[in-house]
Amino acid sequence: MSAFTAVDVIRVKRDGGVLSDAQIDWVVEAYTRGEVADEQMSALAMAILLRGMTPGEIARWTAAMIASGERLDLSGVSRPTVDKHSTGGVGDKITLPLTPLVAACGAAVPQLSGRGLGHTGGTLDKLESIPGWRAVLSNDEFTAQLGDVGAVICAAGAGLAPADRKLYALRDVTGTVEAIPLIASSIMSKKIAEGTGALVLDVKVGSGAFMKSLPDARELARTMVDLGGAHGVRTVALLTDMSTPLGYAIGNAIEVDETLQVLDGAGPADVVELTLALAREMLTAAGLPDVDPAEALRDGRAMDSWRAMIRAQGGDPDAPLPIAAETETVRAERDGVVAAVDAYTMGLTAWRLGAGRARKEDPVSAAAGVVLHKKPGDPVRVGDPLYELRADSAARIADGLAAAADAVVVADRAPAPTPLVIERIA
Amino acid sequence: MSAFTAVDVIRVKRDGGVLSDAQIDWVVEAYTRGEVADEQMSALAMAILLRGMTPGEIARWTAAMIASGERLDLSGVSRPTVDKHSTGGVGDKITLPLTPLVAACGAAVPQLSGRGLGHTGGTLDKLESIPGWRAVLSNDEFTAQLGDVGAVICAAGAGLAPADRKLYALRDVTGTVEAIPLIASSIMSKKIAEGTGALVLDVKVGSGAFMKSLPDARELARTMVDLGGAHGVRTVALLTDMSTPLGYAIGNAIEVDETLQVLDGAGPADVVELTLALAREMLTAAGLPDVDPAEALRDGRAMDSWRAMIRAQGGDPDAPLPIAAETETVRAERDGVVAAVDAYTMGLTAWRLGAGRARKEDPVSAAAGVVLHKKPGDPVRVGDPLYELRADSAARIADGLAAAADAVVVADRAPAPTPLVIERIA
Repeated sequence: MSAFTAVDVIRVKRDGGVLSDAQIDWVVEAYTRGEVADEQMSALAMAILLRGMTPGEIARWTAAMIASGERLDLSGVSRPTVDKHSTGGVGDKITLPLTPLVAACGAAVPQLSGRGLGHTGGTLDKLESIPGWRAVLSNDEFTAQLGDVGAVICAAGAGLAPADRKLYALRDVTGTVEAIPLIASSIMSKKIAEGTGALVLDVKVGSGAFMKSLPDARELARTMVDLGGAHGVRTVALLTDMSTPLGYAIGNAIEVDETLQVLDGAGPADVVELTLALAREMLTAAGLPDVDPAEALRDGRAMDSWRAMIRAQGGDPDAPLPIAAETETVRAERDGVVAAVDAYTMGLTAWRLGAGRARKEDPVSAAAGVVLHKKPGDPVRVGDPLYELRADSAARIADGLAAAADAVVVADRAPAPTPLVIERIA
Repeated sequence: MSAFTAVDVIRVKRDGGVLSDAQIDWVVEAYTRGEVADEQMSALAMAILLRGMTPGEIARWTAAMIASGERLDLSGVSRPTVDKHSTGGVGDKITLPLTPLVAACGAAVPQLSGRGLGHTGGTLDKLESIPGWRAVLSNDEFTAQLGDVGAVICAAGAGLAPADRKLYALRDVTGTVEAIPLIASSIMSKKIAEGTGALVLDVKVGSGAFMKSLPDARELARTMVDLGGAHGVRTVALLTDMSTPLGYAIGNAIEVDETLQVLDGAGPADVVELTLALAREMLTAAGLPDVDPAEALRDGRAMDSWRAMIRAQGGDPDAPLPIAAETETVRAERDGVVAAVDAYTMGLTAWRLGAGRARKEDPVSAAAGVVLHKKPGDPVRVGDPLYELRADSAARIADGLAAAADAVVVADRAPAPTPLVIERIA
């Protein structure tokens, strides 16, 4: 018989109290084993969402989640290791050019990624549009590629933080995703267990982000930076704007295509700016502050690193990407200036077109998505193309058209420019 | 596909919003069917506990729980029907003398009762100490006995408010019992579905009660009185003190024995006082305000009604009650006056002695319990018996002795007298 009961632990948090270290260790471990039932953990998660947690509770909860599984040992990798995590945005393909870029600059990037759910895309879904590429590696393949190529993007193994895997699935169906202590411990437990030496966080703010307000984003970033520090992982966060999609492509194959433009030394200004800003933070955190990542984009080393990374996981970097069977272009109905391209609406639109999934087990379309023709600040004349929808069927196009209504606002005046990188938290 | 998802409904309440009638109808119905999962309902229950509900939401929730099952039709019973519900106390055997007493005065009492869980006893457990008595009746037996005898105490059938049955079991294991909207709707949905014309509520306040504070008890009483009125059930509540056990007996058979004293025209003053106060409220609510229940206790009509009620359910009112194998008397260690006999501690003690259960499926001991020898205000000399523990084994006696420590306080001065009936809410 255990020293605790689930009801006693739930009551402490429900009534606004602070859970003891022993209570946290027990409840996370007992939940992973199945002794604490789903209905008990969901009540506790709701109490945590509404009552909050102290920094001490969050640190202990994270440690308990890490302790629920294995912790990878990357000490055999000769280069300094540094990873990046984004809280998820629309058109956020930054991981794709960033990982090979930072590897080309001398660090090793052990990027364990996820699949998309809802209106934000998933890095693995995007890469799977490349013929032959596979997301699942063994731990040995992972560390070997990290040593050889310096860049790996793959699915997290089931052995890392299994408590988080179970809890995340539960939160998704119980309205308890939006608890900052649980978001922070979920992200950080996986990144710490993955064994990276340093970590740069891209915390998104705005309509297309999980955190809609700056104070919430700041609190999440501060919580995660402190958690990293407490576990010996040098951690820095950038708060970045997600009111407008990143780049012009929102989907899977079309985001890979935009990535290739960036690696070719071209690409959309915002994608290049954020890729370089994160690369500089990662290189500094990895102890390589004097390496200029812009140089590696210009001279083709980043592209070489990308091709090696894709090949190492069975992909053909020269194979043509899938093309959508159906397209539809939406045009401006008046003259003016684009005042807004709403990230959330465009994320939903890409999802409806088939680029995302509603349930974990749904397939995604490689070719579907939205290609923007205009971004905020661009002048337009009536009849100019604003954006193009792509899908595998006419029915999906119709769904996308309905979802996209009002996503783009054309006005008389240009909007005030907003910075892409809003704040740095270290 | 339904118009709602569980996550959407949970989010509304989580964020402090008001659930629509359609959302409440859907979530209660879908939960009863199993479409809304336990882990989703427990998250919603926690959000309700922490965010509250408006009177409109509580009324609709109660209506949805009633609609989840059958509603008994007692219109064939010629006498006026009136029931009583207690929120649960220690030594609270009032239902036992009250039901036959009110029936003896001309009303019909359709009392559907429960079993004990934790530190408060259950009416059915007490009656089951009478040889032959059975708790389970069919609907036909129930209405027939109500017409013939006017008094029935039996288990609620599975057809009444099945949503409540499922939700109550869930709340018990998820730390969400203490939500006033859910307590009120749970009690009232069953009482309204049972078909009674009028209802008197005994809402307990104090250490041995579920509601420890007067404002909480008042809020619960007000909520339930309003719910009754909204469903056409004339409802009145008395707030009554539960800081000290009611009467001298806390257990099963020993509470039946104390009941027989009351029906004989004797018995402890507090049990008699509360029985008569509730009987007067019930008779008034049933349209019989001029009948004096004290008369029916004195002249033996209440005892006749008791004997008929026990016999109708197979019990032998003359059979000897079970007697405990082991007893132990605890004596005063100083001279003085009894300042307190803590209801909660004595409830726990009786439970540890075997009179109560920790889990629904546990058996209870008919003979176990606590018999008080002194109550607050009584003078004592060193060596005088304070209370007696009864159990089926010496090990249980040892558990009870440990649990009872400090339950009785002997001081220099008598405590200020406290009223038993604190307030009336109509």
